[in-house]
Amino acid sequence: MDRTQLSLNTITVRSLPIDRVIELAESHGLGGIAPWRHQLADAGVEHVAKLARAAGLRVSSLCRGGMFTAPDAGGRAVAVQENRRAIDEAAALGADCLVLVCGPVVGKDVPGSWQMVADGIAAVADEAAAAGVRLAIEPLHPMMAADRSVVSRSEKAIDLHEDTGPGVGVIVDAYHVWWDVTLADAIRRAGSRIAGVHVSDWVSPLTGGLLAGRGMIGDGTIDLTGLVSRCRSAGYSGLVEVEILSDRWWAADPELTLTTLIDRFERCI
Amino acid sequence: MDRTQLSLNTITVRSLPIDRVIELAESHGLGGIAPWRHQLADAGVEHVAKLARAAGLRVSSLCRGGMFTAPDAGGRAVAVQENRRAIDEAAALGADCLVLVCGPVVGKDVPGSWQMVADGIAAVADEAAAAGVRLAIEPLHPMMAADRSVVSRSEKAIDLHEDTGPGVGVIVDAYHVWWDVTLADAIRRAGSRIAGVHVSDWVSPLTGGLLAGRGMIGDGTIDLTGLVSRCRSAGYSGLVEVEILSDRWWAADPELTLTTLIDRFERCI
Repeated sequence: MDRTQLSLNTITVRSLPIDRVIELAESHGLGGIAPWRHQLADAGVEHVAKLARAAGLRVSSLCRGGMFTAPDAGGRAVAVQENRRAIDEAAALGADCLVLVCGPVVGKDVPGSWQMVADGIAAVADEAAAAGVRLAIEPLHPMMAADRSVVSRSEKAIDLHEDTGPGVGVIVDAYHVWWDVTLADAIRRAGSRIAGVHVSDWVSPLTGGLLAGRGMIGDGTIDLTGLVSRCRSAGYSGLVEVEILSDRWWAADPELTLTTLIDRFERCI
Repeated sequence: MDRTQLSLNTITVRSLPIDRVIELAESHGLGGIAPWRHQLADAGVEHVAKLARAAGLRVSSLCRGGMFTAPDAGGRAVAVQENRRAIDEAAALGADCLVLVCGPVVGKDVPGSWQMVADGIAAVADEAAAAGVRLAIEPLHPMMAADRSVVSRSEKAIDLHEDTGPGVGVIVDAYHVWWDVTLADAIRRAGSRIAGVHVSDWVSPLTGGLLAGRGMIGDGTIDLTGLVSRCRSAGYSGLVEVEILSDRWWAADPELTLTTLIDRFERCI
C-alpha cells in the first residue's frame, strides 16, 4: 500500500519531539500522523495543529479518550470531564477521530464495567458530535482487560456503538483483534462505522510485556494484507495508522524505525 | 466450596513426583487429580491409575491432547496419531475427559486453522467415544493464539463442539475466558457440554510471561465465585480443577502452595 495512505502514530517513534515527527512525516511523503495527548500538553494543541496543516498531513486520530470505568461515581465523573478536554483537543486538531481506550474491568464485574463504558460514552456523545469529533471505540486485546479496556471484541464494540449513537465509530487495530475467528464478519458488519485501522504485528514469544511487545509489520503472525483489504472492502477509506509500541523499536534509531515501517507498509500490506 | 470438590491439576505443584501428589491429595481430602501426559510417560499409566484408584481420587482430566494444526498434511496426521495415544491413556486412567489444547494459528490463517482443529477432532472422535473418553475442547486465552490455541472463545468452542459431535465437551478455564462479556451466555448455552471447570486468577501486571503468570485463587480480578456458580447452574456437576501455572508458586514450597490453594478454594469460591 502506498505511503500516502500511511499515518504515523507518534508513539512508534516516541523519543522524537512532535515537531520533528511532523517534519519527518512530511519529508517521507506520509499521509498523516496520530499524536498522543501528552505531546499536545507539551507542545500546545494549536502549535501542533498548525504544523500538521502546513505540512499537508491529516491527523488520523488523537490518542486518547476513554477510561470511563471507576469503582465510584466520582471517579467516573472525573473521567467524563477529562473526555470533554480530549474532545476539545481533537476538534482543535481537526482529527479524524478521538480514540477511546474504554477503561479496565473494575470490581471483578465485566458486564458492569461495559455498562460504565456505555454510560461514559453516552455522557459525551452529544458534545463530541457538536464539536465535529468522531468518537472511536478501540477494542483492545483481552490480555489488557484488567488494566486498560474491558472492551475487547470488535463485534461487541459494534453493539456498544449501536447503544451509544450513530456518531460513534470503532477502531480495527490488528494487534488487538487478529486472533478472533469472527473478525471478518465483524469488519463487514462494522462497515462505515470503521473510524480507523491500526497496524503492527504479533510476534511470539512476546517480549517487552503486554504493552510494549508489538512487532514490526511483516515480522509476525497477523494477516495484515487481508485485514486492511477487508476494511477497505467494508468501506473504510481513511488512512492506515502504524502504531508499534515496542521496546525493541524504541531502542533503535527512530529514523531507522521509520524507514523500516514505511518499507514494510509498502511491501507487506 | 468444599475441598472434596477440588481436583488438583498436577502442574500446580510440578516439582513433586506424581506418587507424592496423589499421597498429598488423599491426605488433604481432595476429590481428585488431573495429571499431565509426561508424568504418565515417566511413572507408567497403569501405575498412576492404580494409585489414584487406591487413594479414592477421581481423575478429572488428562492434560492434554490436541495440537491439530500444522502447515502440512503430514504434520496434521502425526498430531492425529498422537491424540490416539492420549485417548488410550485417558481410557486407562478412567479420566473424566481428555483436554484438547487445539493448536496455534498457522499460515496467518485464523479460520483455516480452526478448520484444521475441526478436522483433527473429527478424525479421532469415534475412537474416543468407543474408548469411553470424553474429548474436551479448551478455549485458551487469545494471547496464546500464536503459540498454543486458535480456539479462544467459549461460544465459538461450543459451535466447534456442535460440528464435531455430541461426545465432545468444552472446558471453562477461568483464566482463559474471564474477560469475555458474553461468558455467562456461553456457559448457559454450553450446559451439559461443560466437561470441566478450571480455576486460577488473573493478576496484573502479568509476571512470568504469558504461560506462567497465573495467580492464586482470590489474588486477582476474576469473579471465580460467579463463574463456578454459573457452571453449576448450567448443569456441571464434576470436580473443579485448580490449575495454577506460576513462576511464583512454583518457586514456593509445594506443600505451602497446596495448603494455600485449598484454603482459598474453600473461602473464595
